[in-house]
Amino acid sequence: MHLSHRGDDLWVLARRAARMNPSVIREILKLAELPGVISLAGGLPAPDTFPVERIRQACERVLADAPRDALQYAASEGYGPLREWVVQHLGAQGMSVETSQVLITTGSQQGLDLVGKVLLDVGSTVAVEAPTYLGALQAFAPYEPDFVSLPCDDQGPVVQALSEAHGARFAYLLPNFQNPSGRCMGPARRAELVRAAVAMGLPLVEDNPYGDLWFDTAPPPPLASLWGAGTVYLGSFSKVLAPGLRLGYVVAPKRLSPKLLQAKQAADLHTPGFNQRIVYEVIRDGFLDEHVPSIRRTYHARRDAMQGALRAHLPPGCRWKAPDGGMFYWVELPEHVDATAMLPDAVRRGVAYVPGAAFYASRPKTNTLRLSYVTVAPALIERGVALLGQAVQAVLDPPMRRTA
Amino acid sequence: MHLSHRGDDLWVLARRAARMNPSVIREILKLAELPGVISLAGGLPAPDTFPVERIRQACERVLADAPRDALQYAASEGYGPLREWVVQHLGAQGMSVETSQVLITTGSQQGLDLVGKVLLDVGSTVAVEAPTYLGALQAFAPYEPDFVSLPCDDQGPVVQALSEAHGARFAYLLPNFQNPSGRCMGPARRAELVRAAVAMGLPLVEDNPYGDLWFDTAPPPPLASLWGAGTVYLGSFSKVLAPGLRLGYVVAPKRLSPKLLQAKQAADLHTPGFNQRIVYEVIRDGFLDEHVPSIRRTYHARRDAMQGALRAHLPPGCRWKAPDGGMFYWVELPEHVDATAMLPDAVRRGVAYVPGAAFYASRPKTNTLRLSYVTVAPALIERGVALLGQAVQAVLDPPMRRTA
Repeated sequence: MHLSHRGDDLWVLARRAARMNPSVIREILKLAELPGVISLAGGLPAPDTFPVERIRQACERVLADAPRDALQYAASEGYGPLREWVVQHLGAQGMSVETSQVLITTGSQQGLDLVGKVLLDVGSTVAVEAPTYLGALQAFAPYEPDFVSLPCDDQGPVVQALSEAHGARFAYLLPNFQNPSGRCMGPARRAELVRAAVAMGLPLVEDNPYGDLWFDTAPPPPLASLWGAGTVYLGSFSKVLAPGLRLGYVVAPKRLSPKLLQAKQAADLHTPGFNQRIVYEVIRDGFLDEHVPSIRRTYHARRDAMQGALRAHLPPGCRWKAPDGGMFYWVELPEHVDATAMLPDAVRRGVAYVPGAAFYASRPKTNTLRLSYVTVAPALIERGVALLGQAVQAVLDPPMRRTA
Repeated sequence: MHLSHRGDDLWVLARRAARMNPSVIREILKLAELPGVISLAGGLPAPDTFPVERIRQACERVLADAPRDALQYAASEGYGPLREWVVQHLGAQGMSVETSQVLITTGSQQGLDLVGKVLLDVGSTVAVEAPTYLGALQAFAPYEPDFVSLPCDDQGPVVQALSEAHGARFAYLLPNFQNPSGRCMGPARRAELVRAAVAMGLPLVEDNPYGDLWFDTAPPPPLASLWGAGTVYLGSFSKVLAPGLRLGYVVAPKRLSPKLLQAKQAADLHTPGFNQRIVYEVIRDGFLDEHVPSIRRTYHARRDAMQGALRAHLPPGCRWKAPDGGMFYWVELPEHVDATAMLPDAVRRGVAYVPGAAFYASRPKTNTLRLSYVTVAPALIERGVALLGQAVQAVLDPPMRRTA
């Protein structure tokens, strides 16, 4: 058959597809893979914390005990015992939820997509922190909302700023060791924000992938424990077990649960039942109680290494606050230093980071950057931060230009 | 804190969420689980065909060889060797594609969601077969298109009918052993449909989960082999290995691949790397060449059992055509028999099926139903179809009513 139609002018894209751009995160991951580059750019948990042997045993047990159930199609809401585990786990944090409110998702990223699908029309307003999780902006963007950035201090959104979210479908908040800023909301701020949200009738979407990774003291109870009817809560197994299994969950008020479930079914029928059963086998008898503290210790030591390195190597005028948990440092450079413009020189010197601008829905602070300390050994952290310091210094003190 | 806001009037749903209704498939799966009911309603592959031991060995190998890579975050496009396997596999079917065009998805259901996300605006037209796969209608519906149903004969859409799809963003077609109708498009029909689509500038989305499950002869090459630039092709490992791993793929023209990839990343970052590596380990040395024929033999025998049972037990006026592959029989009852209305009586008698109406985007033929023959042993198929025959007979010859 001879077909003349080459197809270039054939496909009409959805308008939302025009808003999809090559991902900054992806480009960064490529940078990070260059040989000889110390990558502080990653958003990955440390693979040396993955409980490989435990997962191997769980695979074996699942495939011995219920192989055909584990490998067959399964219910869209998720594996019952795992959903009940989530209910218990959240109960210990002051959240009172029923199993029917728990939806297992293919990573908590899918939870963000489903929330957007169910709650956002074209032109709906979504309030986000400044900066905020880039993946959430990417998940919501296809539903074509307008983003409003909430001014933040080192605890998150300032309460007065919430009025800027008036009429928003929801405010998307990361109270615990936020990606990218590392900041954590104190109990008073949580209470004030919830009080203001209740008064405004502003629903909340609370994302908590990092809450278990605290160093000295656990963070305060989640916003959802203060206002269950007004909060969708997202959790994840990626940072406490392993992200490659892609397991997260959404807990929603009862009014929303059936809609999220229907959106989930349309999106991928269900999260792999095999993976759900493996994770349940791994965690069912309290394994996380011993495992998570070991992750905390590892990350705590690496944070300390980075804190020392930042003190030693960053030039005056750079600012940062040591995070009390999670995976990230947020660094503010002197105001006129553009971290995006500086990146190629930094990579040439042998260190990679994520420029902060990508994490803003609007009005980016271009003199910011994100550093991860969890996948790099302390000696390399020291070396990487030293190279970063040199890159900043080079912007502050440009070499004299030779006349031609 | 005392919070008066109960939240019932708090959440504003997206307009698309109003189009999400409790799933017929889900309700059916519940019916099918009633004790004592022979379910011919399932859409599940036969679990006795799952290669459990082979999967167990693959898990072990993956967790021995590259555990931390398998359990870490991974590239959104999928695991390289698996994508290359797909290229080879499709090459053998006459499709010439590059690795960059292959996107691994969390089941092929996710491929449908991503296609909708990238190609459909509110009010876009999508042409579908009548009947068509219910899950595709559910995947596309949140993007608020208008569906146009293409009149079909026992090979699929009649070529003249394609003109009804004028201006559609795409026509969604299942040429091989379609769910629900079981029909297969012959080579001449494929060529004619593609020629008409090229002439109209009508893109195609070709879904092929069942193509490998043929009984006597393989189906003709895919539409995508005739018109690669105008066809998005979806494949799946669910029916040839196991659906609980949730692995499928989308192969798209080069213009679309980057957009699908970005939509994929926003949807769930990536398909579980662990699962991708397991499946690659299972299939890498040609395992499907021995495994798939054994599935074919099992399904062939069960189809024969159902064919005999239908002949023996369905009353005159019922019509069906023996499928040449796949998992389903499509039965037309006498015109005035409503299969949905008949279902409660059938379940009371001890047999479940899927009423055909659910599979139509518009103008449902209410006297149709779908039967699966693959998960039920031949003796139970015989018994189930006999009960179905009694249920139909009861509608045709209603018992005399007693006067009160």
